[in-house]
Amino acid sequence: MTETNYPNLQGPVCPLPLQPGGQIVIGHGSGGGMTRDLIVNVFQKYLGNAVLNSGNDSALLNGELVAPPGYQLVVSTDAHVVFPLFFPGGDIGRLSVCGTVNDVAMLGAQPKYLTASFILEEGFSIDELEKVLASMRDACAEAGVQIIAADTKVTEKGKADKLFITTTGIGWAPVGRRITGDQAQPGDAVLISGALGNHGIAVLQARGNLGFQSDVQSDTAPLNHLTQGLCAAFPDVHVMRDPTRGGLATTLVEIAQQSSVTIQLDEPEIPIDASVRAACDLLGLDTLYLANEGKVIVILPEEHAEDALSFLRAQKYGEKARRIGRVIARSSGQLLLGTALSTTRVLDMLAGEMLPRIC
Amino acid sequence: MTETNYPNLQGPVCPLPLQPGGQIVIGHGSGGGMTRDLIVNVFQKYLGNAVLNSGNDSALLNGELVAPPGYQLVVSTDAHVVFPLFFPGGDIGRLSVCGTVNDVAMLGAQPKYLTASFILEEGFSIDELEKVLASMRDACAEAGVQIIAADTKVTEKGKADKLFITTTGIGWAPVGRRITGDQAQPGDAVLISGALGNHGIAVLQARGNLGFQSDVQSDTAPLNHLTQGLCAAFPDVHVMRDPTRGGLATTLVEIAQQSSVTIQLDEPEIPIDASVRAACDLLGLDTLYLANEGKVIVILPEEHAEDALSFLRAQKYGEKARRIGRVIARSSGQLLLGTALSTTRVLDMLAGEMLPRIC
Repeated sequence: MTETNYPNLQGPVCPLPLQPGGQIVIGHGSGGGMTRDLIVNVFQKYLGNAVLNSGNDSALLNGELVAPPGYQLVVSTDAHVVFPLFFPGGDIGRLSVCGTVNDVAMLGAQPKYLTASFILEEGFSIDELEKVLASMRDACAEAGVQIIAADTKVTEKGKADKLFITTTGIGWAPVGRRITGDQAQPGDAVLISGALGNHGIAVLQARGNLGFQSDVQSDTAPLNHLTQGLCAAFPDVHVMRDPTRGGLATTLVEIAQQSSVTIQLDEPEIPIDASVRAACDLLGLDTLYLANEGKVIVILPEEHAEDALSFLRAQKYGEKARRIGRVIARSSGQLLLGTALSTTRVLDMLAGEMLPRIC
Repeated sequence: MTETNYPNLQGPVCPLPLQPGGQIVIGHGSGGGMTRDLIVNVFQKYLGNAVLNSGNDSALLNGELVAPPGYQLVVSTDAHVVFPLFFPGGDIGRLSVCGTVNDVAMLGAQPKYLTASFILEEGFSIDELEKVLASMRDACAEAGVQIIAADTKVTEKGKADKLFITTTGIGWAPVGRRITGDQAQPGDAVLISGALGNHGIAVLQARGNLGFQSDVQSDTAPLNHLTQGLCAAFPDVHVMRDPTRGGLATTLVEIAQQSSVTIQLDEPEIPIDASVRAACDLLGLDTLYLANEGKVIVILPEEHAEDALSFLRAQKYGEKARRIGRVIARSSGQLLLGTALSTTRVLDMLAGEMLPRIC
């Protein structure tokens, strides 16, 4: 053993990292004193709570916090690598909370807890990190979820792109509730909670790739209150899913294949904001394949479609809800688009990549 | 809307990515057809199970799989950014499973489920990805855990370093079992399950940074069977924690501070393999600060220390267990090292970074 208590092969260990204007340095990933400084002075300032602050490597949830009898666990995980970190209407913090909250909510579950792991690039601005953490705090408050475990790693400069966040969501759903992609039935109606494509265009705007100004805002939002209310009011909802990467078309092809049905969309009914439509027309992008981060596809029996639409339109994130199609037959899984000209064409999944790192 | 069903702004979409010798391309992160190809043909080949393969964005755990009555949830998350991906005795796949399994196990819980999210760099070898996934499969089998949800994102070349894996672990512990860092009591004995520093030196070896050949292997291993057995046999275990980043010294300082006690280590009793000691002496590294990925510190009442040692030594990953110190007093939190020369010195946390990206 050497004589020093602070073994260090990497240069100065304490470059005043937590001053205003400070940067992430390699030592913040050490697991030692600098990591603790970062956790206590930055992470806990925004995300702190009794479970997270307990300082153990795992979260221990008190008896009162586990799933109540008659409920089952629902779990989801997502890495978030969106570029750039900040975009009109959101940032990677809000996105990383809402994305996972929504994935848990889509099975008819109530999201309760999140974990968050952060990969930071050396040199990343601590001011920007604080903005992201404030967004996470606000999104968690809106969704009603708590971050119960977290982790921080640091890579050398050039080995990551500023900040990646992986969140895992845990929630519960009543035992026997089965809202999954394989439950669509012929005769069902297909609803969407609002206009499509806003997130994709907002991120392109932030990249400076539009070539013109637009006022499009990302739709990033937690949908769990909307979906919980919907499930309570309409117990026969068959499918809920958020059309994120790959957009509406890819998501509906997946559902059609899981359920072995043909879904037909009615193109004129699909809600698209004028500014998004204009951007797509100029850039040659298909709105049906653009990512959304605050929309839900709802599939349920025809007889409840109108009431469900009214319900959605009364919710914060459902004002522009529309009925956009129906499940027309059993099949090997097909998505059709009926156009304004009364022609019909087959839509496939997005094959490759339209917009890398959209979420 | 454009006329194509495969919108694509990024060049060829199908460069035969899944042939032997293939590489990750941007399209594998699209959320569309190529992502599905990668999931079905690569990820599911190694990690597939009924829950993961169901194709929903969340995992729905059947009623029979939730925590039994009288148990509480334990949750942990960790990002893994180890460099290089492969090292003597392990790789990022084994590490990402064992690291999180162990964090859950350290609270006396039985780890049951993992989620895994993958951030892949464009150009990463699919053959190497398959090796990592095979390691994850084998480590999950050894630990007895199931991967129930996963996610894949792809960054452009140069925006990540080949592969990062974040795992989240879910397990359960009996309600009322309280094995946490704040439970160490004066009079307790401090045990370690085996020799220290092997992981750190093995990773240095893999980086070509040793400057000489060594036969040191990483100790990366799932400790949950050992810890479960220990808790069952010794219900009064006070603390278990794995000395990973920051090593034995940093971890014991944390525990001393959480429990408000002084811990004294007996240096001659600390087990260090001769090859690790030689490497540390040559490089000026302090073994007490080197990362371990398959060791556990156990703190329990003195009167059970000998029996617990015997128990540990009969376990697969505990053959070299030793009693290395004791909790000597209440204090504001201090770690002392009694040396072979009968002097005593104060050990502090690792302050900065000794070895970046060790896990």
